[in-house]
Amino acid sequence: MKIPTLLFTVVVLGSILIAQNSKQGKDESAIRNADAGWSHALEAKDLDRATSFYGNGASVYPFNAPLTTGRDNIRQLWSHLFESPGFHLQFAPTKIEVAKGGDMAYDTGTFELKTNGSDGTPTTTPGKYVVVWKKQNGQWKAVADIFNTDK
Amino acid sequence: MKIPTLLFTVVVLGSILIAQNSKQGKDESAIRNADAGWSHALEAKDLDRATSFYGNGASVYPFNAPLTTGRDNIRQLWSHLFESPGFHLQFAPTKIEVAKGGDMAYDTGTFELKTNGSDGTPTTTPGKYVVVWKKQNGQWKAVADIFNTDK
Repeated sequence: MKIPTLLFTVVVLGSILIAQNSKQGKDESAIRNADAGWSHALEAKDLDRATSFYGNGASVYPFNAPLTTGRDNIRQLWSHLFESPGFHLQFAPTKIEVAKGGDMAYDTGTFELKTNGSDGTPTTTPGKYVVVWKKQNGQWKAVADIFNTDK
Repeated sequence: MKIPTLLFTVVVLGSILIAQNSKQGKDESAIRNADAGWSHALEAKDLDRATSFYGNGASVYPFNAPLTTGRDNIRQLWSHLFESPGFHLQFAPTKIEVAKGGDMAYDTGTFELKTNGSDGTPTTTPGKYVVVWKKQNGQWKAVADIFNTDK
């Protein structure tokens, strides 16, 4: 390889590496912002917004209930959950990791679910979650959303 | 850019793309094989082998129990679970997706847990899981292992 070609290759590869690190930071921020908006939408029981974070072919894995795949089924699931008496849900991430290619990420954290028990008493259920994100048409979308309780 | 330099760049980038696709297939097979070995190890209650699939900083998210992080705590968790009367666990993947950079993947599927109830009656609990994998020192290792029940 001639020196100018080698130099050109080094510059291209170096630029790709620098761009990648800065991109990973941006991707992490984008997912953190999505989480904040998503948690607010769940708190507000805003079905349109809460389900807008799911991507094509997404699945939700609710505890004590079957796997739910696809936009319509996921919408039905959340609609049903929002109707639970005293329903109040919030979550926050503790870790977000983005794959170096910027096409996949995972996000994990905790949630707090409040509902009224069968006798009407408000109960708080703490739990944990993992969300797998994929970039679809330039936007981060949740493709797997799984959570369970701590107790 | 001179024609030879352009041609060189096109050949390099083309080769990277071809190598990437073949690599993704190999990565998927590696994770599928790991899953098969892991499920057998859980069935056999082989604590050393069952916990060998976790990577550095891994977390397990058991249902109805707190988040468990780090090798020693994960070992204790599985040791405790293996002691449940009638314990028998198997799982199998339904989907494995590898990030294009070959550094992260996720794997989802179903499990079947058998244990004896408080009165000794064997009960079967079907469930679902998501495992996030990262390549650490050239090997795919589970970094997040979360599962819950269907009923």
